[in-house]
Amino acid sequence: MAKEKKQPRPKAQTPKGFRDYFGTEVTERSDMLQKIAGVYHHYGFDALESSAVETVEALGKFLPDVDRPNEGVFAWQEEDSDWLALRYDLTAPLARVYAQYRNDLPTPYRRYAMGPVWRNEKPGPGRFRQFYQCDADTVGAPSVAADAEICAMLSDTLETVGIPRGDYLVRINNRKVLNGVLECMGLSDDAQRDDVLRTIDKFDKVGAAGVRELLGKGRLDASGAYIDGVGLSDDQAAPVLAFLTSRGDTAAQTLSNLRDAVGSSTIGAEGVGELDTMAELLDAGGYGADRIILDPSVVRGLGYYTGPVFEAELTFEIFDEKGRKRQFGSVSGGGRYDDLVKRFTGQSVPATGVSVGVDRLLAALREKGRIGSQSRGPVVVTVMDRDRMADYQAMVTELRNAGIRAEVYLGNPKNFGNQLKYADTRNSPIAIIEGGDEKAQGIIQIKDLILGAQIAQNATLEEWKERPSQFTVPRGDLVAKVREILATQAQ
Amino acid sequence: MAKEKKQPRPKAQTPKGFRDYFGTEVTERSDMLQKIAGVYHHYGFDALESSAVETVEALGKFLPDVDRPNEGVFAWQEEDSDWLALRYDLTAPLARVYAQYRNDLPTPYRRYAMGPVWRNEKPGPGRFRQFYQCDADTVGAPSVAADAEICAMLSDTLETVGIPRGDYLVRINNRKVLNGVLECMGLSDDAQRDDVLRTIDKFDKVGAAGVRELLGKGRLDASGAYIDGVGLSDDQAAPVLAFLTSRGDTAAQTLSNLRDAVGSSTIGAEGVGELDTMAELLDAGGYGADRIILDPSVVRGLGYYTGPVFEAELTFEIFDEKGRKRQFGSVSGGGRYDDLVKRFTGQSVPATGVSVGVDRLLAALREKGRIGSQSRGPVVVTVMDRDRMADYQAMVTELRNAGIRAEVYLGNPKNFGNQLKYADTRNSPIAIIEGGDEKAQGIIQIKDLILGAQIAQNATLEEWKERPSQFTVPRGDLVAKVREILATQAQ
Repeated sequence: MAKEKKQPRPKAQTPKGFRDYFGTEVTERSDMLQKIAGVYHHYGFDALESSAVETVEALGKFLPDVDRPNEGVFAWQEEDSDWLALRYDLTAPLARVYAQYRNDLPTPYRRYAMGPVWRNEKPGPGRFRQFYQCDADTVGAPSVAADAEICAMLSDTLETVGIPRGDYLVRINNRKVLNGVLECMGLSDDAQRDDVLRTIDKFDKVGAAGVRELLGKGRLDASGAYIDGVGLSDDQAAPVLAFLTSRGDTAAQTLSNLRDAVGSSTIGAEGVGELDTMAELLDAGGYGADRIILDPSVVRGLGYYTGPVFEAELTFEIFDEKGRKRQFGSVSGGGRYDDLVKRFTGQSVPATGVSVGVDRLLAALREKGRIGSQSRGPVVVTVMDRDRMADYQAMVTELRNAGIRAEVYLGNPKNFGNQLKYADTRNSPIAIIEGGDEKAQGIIQIKDLILGAQIAQNATLEEWKERPSQFTVPRGDLVAKVREILATQAQ
Repeated sequence: MAKEKKQPRPKAQTPKGFRDYFGTEVTERSDMLQKIAGVYHHYGFDALESSAVETVEALGKFLPDVDRPNEGVFAWQEEDSDWLALRYDLTAPLARVYAQYRNDLPTPYRRYAMGPVWRNEKPGPGRFRQFYQCDADTVGAPSVAADAEICAMLSDTLETVGIPRGDYLVRINNRKVLNGVLECMGLSDDAQRDDVLRTIDKFDKVGAAGVRELLGKGRLDASGAYIDGVGLSDDQAAPVLAFLTSRGDTAAQTLSNLRDAVGSSTIGAEGVGELDTMAELLDAGGYGADRIILDPSVVRGLGYYTGPVFEAELTFEIFDEKGRKRQFGSVSGGGRYDDLVKRFTGQSVPATGVSVGVDRLLAALREKGRIGSQSRGPVVVTVMDRDRMADYQAMVTELRNAGIRAEVYLGNPKNFGNQLKYADTRNSPIAIIEGGDEKAQGIIQIKDLILGAQIAQNATLEEWKERPSQFTVPRGDLVAKVREILATQAQ
């Protein structure tokens, strides 16, 4: 018989583009999701959790964003020939769910959903193939009151997770206004309209002057490559630039500028009217310009959405990887999209919604030092005598029953130094020690590890003597003394 | 040009074997996961969240349970030829993570993980291809003190999620004891040992008499098919039955019976010793026989685990789908498994852990009526005059700012009946009404929908008059009156 070939060992590696999250990375995100769910619920939204897997048929195989047709999904074929795929966002499953259950769901249907989504794209730095989304959508409400509500909710959400007023802005634009502008320009050629839309999408990056060049003859980009322009004359391009730069000091001023920009276009006037209504509703709710503003320079998603478009931006500055100051930027976006379920049912159903970038928000809070401090580990009961595990077990149970996070050392107890090293790795605040002598005397040693570390680093001999970090107390005082030390440490 | 073929509409269907969760189904599970995470954290366990996707190489393509080689995973091949798969449990990813990060992780490493897992199996009633697991494991702790700790934690977990003491039992067995029994029997043939193990696994279903037959000549099963036996004589089979039925009235009695069952086997004595130690440690922690017992009839997983095995069982009775009374049964299982990371590193690392069946526990709590009552919907501000949305928006904001879950009706307001029907579908407690007349008089109507429904069902005309369910109050009293009604409803 041929000798069996030895199998090589598998590699212990996170798959490319995925990552693992440890400890507070997990709990901080989970806390944030809970807080956001709380706000969404408060606004009358109901939870929905669909499965991670959808049929490719229901999902559509590719992302809806026309600019990224090659970015796909993770898909596989079932034995019985059905193709299944991991969801790439939470909107496509909502469309499927709404089409499937529409007769049983309330209309309008306000739902929120949170969970991971998957993208089969080339991973990059800080760009993962699995990440969290946290969406709220209102289905079946044609009125922009639904959009205004979502903007107000977005503002509340940001403040609830710890972004104070003044550190963020929700900015609103409207696709219909842009359509009005395009109508004014007399662009009848669909391809040219698409070119203009694509150019507008670069406003964030290249600014007004760049957009002017790109709408005209073209532009030399930073890399030295020449980008061909759309080929409009300056006169033709002017309304687009007027639209993008029409933000005034007040909502009234902005609306007036926009009215000029759309001229006699009916769809344009409708869009301006929608913005006007949203401003009025938000004002009635007390959401002033310190939280939510009309801003026609919001272009992200203008190509995808059909009515109001909104974006939440953090306005404080951070240092980027090259040490340059820049604004933190967008953490959430959304807008109105028609035809949510039309693919399934043939009927148009209006919908509007928002998606919050939970991981971006967590990064922002870390950047500001509001989360991410190392969390306190458990109290560690050390093992001096392996035959008396029951004694140590009793201690740890006493501590836990008193509401104190605690554990007994479960490694090999032979080397006591390893036990203290372990306590250190765990960021433990306190170690408990009870050797044979202590047991005989009915006492225990309690070591304040935080103070111990401080003293070891900074203290003079005098201070060392004055502020002992290890205490001998009767066994019966275990819980009381641990509580006392934890209280000192919390200060 | 040929006419383009019209694409058929996609079906709006949850993929086969998957399901969608709505409203309280989502939030009740999320609440339970949080509570469990709280207990795990309290015991010193740290959170870990690995991605849903692993390489097939790291995962191993099939489930580890030898009895189910055909149950697979959802897997697909990447363009660059790597095979990826959805995780089928939380233990395989733990093995990969521990092997990958072992130099940076504390030893022992206590970690918990919760999230969906996926099984590519044939779906059945109540059996889904995506479900939640909620695991805690201690890696690198050879002592059974780690196993005892996990049993104690399991007991605390069950009580924390709402299963009172007396309604559950954690039962402990040990694979080494069984090995001792097999050694006593002088079974040297591996195939025969496997046959015996497989037979023991049926003890839950067929009982002692059934196991006796299956170990001997064979047995006619309920369907009338004859199942061939292992072919042991009654004498040979006796130690296995002695083992399975050796639970006594006290732990001491059980241990004594087990000592008899393993005879002179060294591995058997070691297993009995481990059970003894666990009993002692649990006793020291105050976990008595009302919560945790030694029970050699626990057979689930005996084939898979290598030392202590444990299972949590709910002991109350429910009615099954055929109306027969039966015990609710197992909601959690676990045990010690060696060689967690050996596939990756070649080194043995001992580990022990538990997995809690969150969906089973939720079903149990629903069965007992402890969760699952319909949740209260939002207060609904109705729209009598669509031009005054700002007024309604202001009301809803007032309510939300006062901490009251509320929403304005966002559907087509033309038909007022539809608005009340909507409030009904949402299980709303209160509807607010402000028509033109009310506005002019500075008043609003507040409708108690819960009381209204009760009265409509049961009340006499007198009661109807005496207990009005609709109130006229000044606009300024909106929040105060809503609060008052909500307080009455909560009683």
